[in-house]
Amino acid sequence: MKTDIQVNILVVEDNDSERESIVEALQASIQDVNLLAVSDGEQALDYLFKRGAWKDHPRNAPPKLILLDLAMPGADGFSVLGQVRSIEPEQALTRTPVVIFTDSQASGDITESYRCGANSYIIKPLSFPDFRIIVESIGQYWMMHNTVGV
Amino acid sequence: MKTDIQVNILVVEDNDSERESIVEALQASIQDVNLLAVSDGEQALDYLFKRGAWKDHPRNAPPKLILLDLAMPGADGFSVLGQVRSIEPEQALTRTPVVIFTDSQASGDITESYRCGANSYIIKPLSFPDFRIIVESIGQYWMMHNTVGV
Repeated sequence: MKTDIQVNILVVEDNDSERESIVEALQASIQDVNLLAVSDGEQALDYLFKRGAWKDHPRNAPPKLILLDLAMPGADGFSVLGQVRSIEPEQALTRTPVVIFTDSQASGDITESYRCGANSYIIKPLSFPDFRIIVESIGQYWMMHNTVGV
Repeated sequence: MKTDIQVNILVVEDNDSERESIVEALQASIQDVNLLAVSDGEQALDYLFKRGAWKDHPRNAPPKLILLDLAMPGADGFSVLGQVRSIEPEQALTRTPVVIFTDSQASGDITESYRCGANSYIIKPLSFPDFRIIVESIGQYWMMHNTVGV
């Protein structure tokens, strides 16, 4: 699971085939992108807060994007989002864009995601071509246009 | 300045030629989009909070996107952002995506924008073609992919 030191995009998705599709689409559409893809919220929190397997792993900066599923076993998307947004505001991780990428169209999930500090909420399209187009669009927007500062 | 009742994108930009370029790029790239473009924060706040010239203007929902310059005479971008994000959380306007679109590369402005609840921070490119491409990308991402709920 470990990649190079500087992860640009952290993908958190428990569905294996969807996670693979997301990684493929991002790698195909963004040059030299460094991805870390994990299958649950606990692994995401371990990476972001340098715990568990990531305890002694050096790094320079948080990811420029966290693409986060909501419904996952163990720590779900809300748990990850809540912990990322509740740290001290001077830490760069608080500014890391979090895009919720989920099957849920429930208005309660949408409202709660924004209330917890999600930057964007995107419902997964059902067709594979649309899924790929949307993932590419998410990656390009946040990696190539958005600024998070230093 | 008044348009139809339902505004999809509110553009807040004091530079006349940039405001016109933004409007043109958005209209060219998004079908049936309804724009309101204003030249300062006071007008934006009047529209969003139904004050002044917008007092008795009926509408159904807040915009799906606010594209907001930072440095403007009178109420600046921070003032608009602060007021939009400080209302009651059950109001739909609190979930309206706010994209800061500015010349400023100052890390203090970037940090403060995210701290105040901006969803995204994009630095205006210097070349006109790049400016247009980025505005199209912003419009398409937030109007066609992002969900704000009802």
